[in-house]
Amino acid sequence: MALNRLIRMGIVGGGSDAFIGKVHRMAAQLDSKIRLVAGALSIDPKIAVQSGKDLFLDPKRVYLTYKEMVAAEKALPAEERIDFVAVVTPDDTHVEIATAFLNIGVSVVCEKPVSVKHKDALALRETVKKTGLAFAIMHGYTGYPLVRHARALVRNGGIGKIYKIIAEYPQDWILPRGDAPLHLAGWRMDPKFGTSLSMGDIGIHAAQLVRFVTGLDIETLSADLRTYTPGGRRDDDGNVLVRYKGGAHGVIYASQVSAGEENGLTIRIYGSKGGIEWHQENPNQLIVKTQGEPSKILTRAQPYLDASIPARNTRMPTGHPEGLIEAFANIYLDFADDVAAIAEGGKVSKTHLYPDIEDAVFGKTFVDTAIESNKSKEKWTKFPKV
Amino acid sequence: MALNRLIRMGIVGGGSDAFIGKVHRMAAQLDSKIRLVAGALSIDPKIAVQSGKDLFLDPKRVYLTYKEMVAAEKALPAEERIDFVAVVTPDDTHVEIATAFLNIGVSVVCEKPVSVKHKDALALRETVKKTGLAFAIMHGYTGYPLVRHARALVRNGGIGKIYKIIAEYPQDWILPRGDAPLHLAGWRMDPKFGTSLSMGDIGIHAAQLVRFVTGLDIETLSADLRTYTPGGRRDDDGNVLVRYKGGAHGVIYASQVSAGEENGLTIRIYGSKGGIEWHQENPNQLIVKTQGEPSKILTRAQPYLDASIPARNTRMPTGHPEGLIEAFANIYLDFADDVAAIAEGGKVSKTHLYPDIEDAVFGKTFVDTAIESNKSKEKWTKFPKV
Amino acid sequence: MALNRLIRMGIVGGGSDAFIGKVHRMAAQLDSKIRLVAGALSIDPKIAVQSGKDLFLDPKRVYLTYKEMVAAEKALPAEERIDFVAVVTPDDTHVEIATAFLNIGVSVVCEKPVSVKHKDALALRETVKKTGLAFAIMHGYTGYPLVRHARALVRNGGIGKIYKIIAEYPQDWILPRGDAPLHLAGWRMDPKFGTSLSMGDIGIHAAQLVRFVTGLDIETLSADLRTYTPGGRRDDDGNVLVRYKGGAHGVIYASQVSAGEENGLTIRIYGSKGGIEWHQENPNQLIVKTQGEPSKILTRAQPYLDASIPARNTRMPTGHPEGLIEAFANIYLDFADDVAAIAEGGKVSKTHLYPDIEDAVFGKTFVDTAIESNKSKEKWTKFPKV
Amino acid sequence: MALNRLIRMGIVGGGSDAFIGKVHRMAAQLDSKIRLVAGALSIDPKIAVQSGKDLFLDPKRVYLTYKEMVAAEKALPAEERIDFVAVVTPDDTHVEIATAFLNIGVSVVCEKPVSVKHKDALALRETVKKTGLAFAIMHGYTGYPLVRHARALVRNGGIGKIYKIIAEYPQDWILPRGDAPLHLAGWRMDPKFGTSLSMGDIGIHAAQLVRFVTGLDIETLSADLRTYTPGGRRDDDGNVLVRYKGGAHGVIYASQVSAGEENGLTIRIYGSKGGIEWHQENPNQLIVKTQGEPSKILTRAQPYLDASIPARNTRMPTGHPEGLIEAFANIYLDFADDVAAIAEGGKVSKTHLYPDIEDAVFGKTFVDTAIESNKSKEKWTKFPKV
Repeated sequence: MALNRLIRMGIVGGGSDAFIGKVHRMAAQLDSKIRLVAGALSIDPKIAVQSGKDLFLDPKRVYLTYKEMVAAEKALPAEERIDFVAVVTPDDTHVEIATAFLNIGVSVVCEKPVSVKHKDALALRETVKKTGLAFAIMHGYTGYPLVRHARALVRNGGIGKIYKIIAEYPQDWILPRGDAPLHLAGWRMDPKFGTSLSMGDIGIHAAQLVRFVTGLDIETLSADLRTYTPGGRRDDDGNVLVRYKGGAHGVIYASQVSAGEENGLTIRIYGSKGGIEWHQENPNQLIVKTQGEPSKILTRAQPYLDASIPARNTRMPTGHPEGLIEAFANIYLDFADDVAAIAEGGKVSKTHLYPDIEDAVFGKTFVDTAIESNKSKEKWTKFPKV
Repeated sequence: MALNRLIRMGIVGGGSDAFIGKVHRMAAQLDSKIRLVAGALSIDPKIAVQSGKDLFLDPKRVYLTYKEMVAAEKALPAEERIDFVAVVTPDDTHVEIATAFLNIGVSVVCEKPVSVKHKDALALRETVKKTGLAFAIMHGYTGYPLVRHARALVRNGGIGKIYKIIAEYPQDWILPRGDAPLHLAGWRMDPKFGTSLSMGDIGIHAAQLVRFVTGLDIETLSADLRTYTPGGRRDDDGNVLVRYKGGAHGVIYASQVSAGEENGLTIRIYGSKGGIEWHQENPNQLIVKTQGEPSKILTRAQPYLDASIPARNTRMPTGHPEGLIEAFANIYLDFADDVAAIAEGGKVSKTHLYPDIEDAVFGKTFVDTAIESNKSKEKWTKFPKV
Repeated sequence: MALNRLIRMGIVGGGSDAFIGKVHRMAAQLDSKIRLVAGALSIDPKIAVQSGKDLFLDPKRVYLTYKEMVAAEKALPAEERIDFVAVVTPDDTHVEIATAFLNIGVSVVCEKPVSVKHKDALALRETVKKTGLAFAIMHGYTGYPLVRHARALVRNGGIGKIYKIIAEYPQDWILPRGDAPLHLAGWRMDPKFGTSLSMGDIGIHAAQLVRFVTGLDIETLSADLRTYTPGGRRDDDGNVLVRYKGGAHGVIYASQVSAGEENGLTIRIYGSKGGIEWHQENPNQLIVKTQGEPSKILTRAQPYLDASIPARNTRMPTGHPEGLIEAFANIYLDFADDVAAIAEGGKVSKTHLYPDIEDAVFGKTFVDTAIESNKSKEKWTKFPKV
Repeated sequence: MALNRLIRMGIVGGGSDAFIGKVHRMAAQLDSKIRLVAGALSIDPKIAVQSGKDLFLDPKRVYLTYKEMVAAEKALPAEERIDFVAVVTPDDTHVEIATAFLNIGVSVVCEKPVSVKHKDALALRETVKKTGLAFAIMHGYTGYPLVRHARALVRNGGIGKIYKIIAEYPQDWILPRGDAPLHLAGWRMDPKFGTSLSMGDIGIHAAQLVRFVTGLDIETLSADLRTYTPGGRRDDDGNVLVRYKGGAHGVIYASQVSAGEENGLTIRIYGSKGGIEWHQENPNQLIVKTQGEPSKILTRAQPYLDASIPARNTRMPTGHPEGLIEAFANIYLDFADDVAAIAEGGKVSKTHLYPDIEDAVFGKTFVDTAIESNKSKEKWTKFPKV
């Protein structure tokens, strides 16, 4: 990333009434390589304006709608225009917004899932290909250095031939707390975003994490999705059997009704020579197991980690914990490389580590195939090639 | 257990060439209520005799075959005859041996699984019912005090309506170690004991643990069983989706090829009001979770545990670890109550905590249904009522 | 912090050849309230210039020495001048630099320890008082939300009368690795920075953490400091017995030669009604213990945490790990409040949570008293009032 | 242990009104090598008789006093007389009872501490030497296989030259629970057993564990003992700085007022090449650390453990937890070897692993030196050679 200036970031969504947008802003700017300069921060104009003030943005670049933003940024000279935009709006608006920005030459970081309808994901893929711009889908957990070490270890044969993969993602946020009313508010509970909340909101992260670490394609799956929340309109708990190409099999499950579980994304992969175990809630450790040997606790920022992990992915010495903001920031650093390359007339790298439009399509396909399998009486549902 | 004498125990199997028999002997005699007085300790006569010597048994009661033992014990006066026998032989001999002893009025503790053929388990159930004697199937993990607390908590509504159950049982003993040859020896690998090693050897424990704690019946299941060991003749890894009567669903999996996992039986149960988590490798702790509250670490031998747990189930103060021998011993204590009652003319208790012939039949049915489901193209295989 | 503009930050030290300065930069700017605008980034002019470029600073405000920076910033109009400076240089330069900036009206964040000589710390305290400006000493661990919860809990009597305090800080960075030469390089090993590396570099953090959480003053202490590194010129391992005013006693220890320990700052405090345990390497958890009750695992960002913890101290939902950069950022947020107040004509708050000049003097006194005690033949050395 | 019969055990104390005696009985008999045949089980005659019945002892060998037992056992023919006696009475009676049995040729296992008065310990040592019989002092924690591995590892140079030793033993049993009255009952609180409860009851275990694992002698120590229990008459919390011969230093602390701590004996030893960490509450794991390498979790019953650990010390495969009864049983197995040797005309082995009379004297000396140091104004109190 040799660009001799700050990379200019815009954002759609992420005002003071939102959560994940703030994480994107902090992560993107953490390394002083990117600076937020424009945004359509909320569909509520008051919140949009106030959020812009709170962020000390130039008021001229605090927009009320994404369309206004597209038009205005397009009109700016290239040396002022945003280099990329982060799209952190509800799921059903991602493709429309992303497409509009791509079409004016602005790269995109997009929250997951990329779309509600599968065909929209495919259409977006066409746009990305056509424009040649950078597109990242935010699976932040792939930015953790020890996940990247796990990837290198597994892909380099460190655990032998893969046999079994257990990916779990339990949460409990939908469950009522004490006398509190059921947590049914919020756009996430609306079935217009798809029938599967368990897979669409978090199972997708687990499936993507498996893909990121192992590179294995899913051959078939068998899903059992359930809605436990009284009155719930999207399923909130799902268990999926998976068979991978090449012979491994496993389980992916996700739940928003697992009491006491906060954000328990966990992955365990076992092969002929060893296994790995990583817990998102304890991300600075990776456990590596070998039959007949003591298990090893690998920690972040140690020299024994794989040389392929960029030094910049680590901001703190070992023993000084890093968290999810830093993991997001690692994805932004990767993404910024491609944005910088494009700004200098180059192209998107073929070996980038950030999840891209292919991953976005995979994720959407995973969710839809799980939904289809859940309805089916057949044991196994084929994972389509898209 | 008011019997004014030691309870007399016999054993079939468990010589110096066996492992689990030794555990039975230590556990049964731990509390000085039961004493081993007779045995057919090995099918190898030399080992049988030497093992009897090592145990300082009366040479007259060291038998070379179980048939000899049945005949000789039958001929003894009632006040010398063994009260019960522990059957710790290979799976395909359990029913034959158990039946022979039941028919001479001797109660039975039997290793799991009860039989290789399902019909044999049913036949044994008839014999047990007919004789009115005590019969225990050894699922030793149900003897841990904190498992018993979990049972009381869950069955008393402590976690509300049950939503999700994850039961895992990974091991790695089949995997080759370093340059060592594949671990294909031993009777366990012989398909004459059934096609499923993963379910038959350990999945059965996980399923039984769910049943013990929750009391839920399985409605349907969907199994994916695999053989990863090169040349393996029984499956060594299985994942099973389960739907329980009443609406809960979950996963049961078992593996003998999960590198670095020693004996990782784990159970997590989530309900509308809370959840529990217990790890067999750390049996002196039970984690109880509630949405919106800190997770609690319950420990053995604390006054806050359920009053239904017998005081004798705990031999050490809190913080002084107990292990699996003690868990087995708790099952023997329960079993000894029934044996003592029978010796005094009474009957088998209807509320005993030890797993009995119904559990034995359940376990066998679970394994067979998983095997059947694995072959089926239907998603769900009905769990039969037997 | 109602200041209607970004707070302007300068930095002395923290170029590309340094570690901790980068952490200060990331943390200070994390919340888009503060922006780095000027710096004397290295004593090596080339590094200083390049580091300024890497950070996209205005070249006019990339200085080669702190003196140049003081002069230039002083000459700027108030509405451009930095509001505060972070001093992240070697220990023996802190006071001189901090004093120079305070004297031109610029508040200061300073790395610990504040000084090498005790009298310099006292002199700086006079300057801080005289100028009325904000001064923070960076004990970053006090910024963790769960440390702040522990403080509230303990100070509000949640664990009763305090009996015992164990504060540990083991590291291993000085130990040779494999065939690598001894890690004797770096300014930290130079005895001109004081004879005690164990106490001066990390024991001071442990002592400050006790003070932050409990508010207890040390009455007397007894130190045993040792140098294990062959050829070492500052002690690298120290154990200290401490008696606190009010009756509690405890242990503080620090080590740079504890193999396999990365940054194991841990605090356990026990009182008449309960206890707390917190591990810096797992900062998103706080264990709260009560005799006769299950231990509780408290986690970050839960509603049950003390209401006094500012919402802004938490950037991620529970289960989404935060790290040390965020803890630093929390201290910067507190500090920024005072800087904003001063910019608007107000004063330093008396209830701020960030460690200040009194803490800086305490830390220096702790180190010096430990050194004095180590030399003494008397069991207890009185902790002086300064 | 080739003795061609069961070893005959007697016990003084350990009736149904006692705790630790039961543990001795279970542990001693666990492996079917030793059988309890006689006892003076309580000073309360009713309890003594009933306890004998509960254990199905021959009523003729259920004695009402230890003196009666000595006389009667002495009068028995050698082929019936007990081979050894376990002395599990209050501390001030150990030496008197042990001496009486030694004098009739009966070996002794004795609870710790060996005596209340130091001179009594020395006198007992003379008797043991004079009689040439076996004497074990029960430090049960030294029987854990992973403690024995740690000993082998450390003594064979596996962690290099020892630098630092942290041994902790927190409990909370004295603290009042909720509205319950203070736990001041029981003979343990009576100062006639010595002024230091913290050191005499549990600190002695921590010190012995250090000695067992490292073999290091204490050079000097500095103790700070406190009584926190209102109305307490023996100290209940102590912190001790220790300097070992050869240059290592460390901390030993013990507490009965550390809320929420059950039996938290922990040892961490650091050397020039690595470190070890073992927690009594998780005894089936040993953590081995090396600078610059991942920490390793060693588990019980793995082939990689030191070959010097007897196979019989392990009764369960790895992953199947063993507890403290089994650790005690390991000590009894070692002790039984010496008893068997004596029965066959041989001598006490010089390389036994069980703690013996020298360890008993060491433990008593440690407690007394800590008490003396606590009173002293000198920083360091010399550890006497006895």
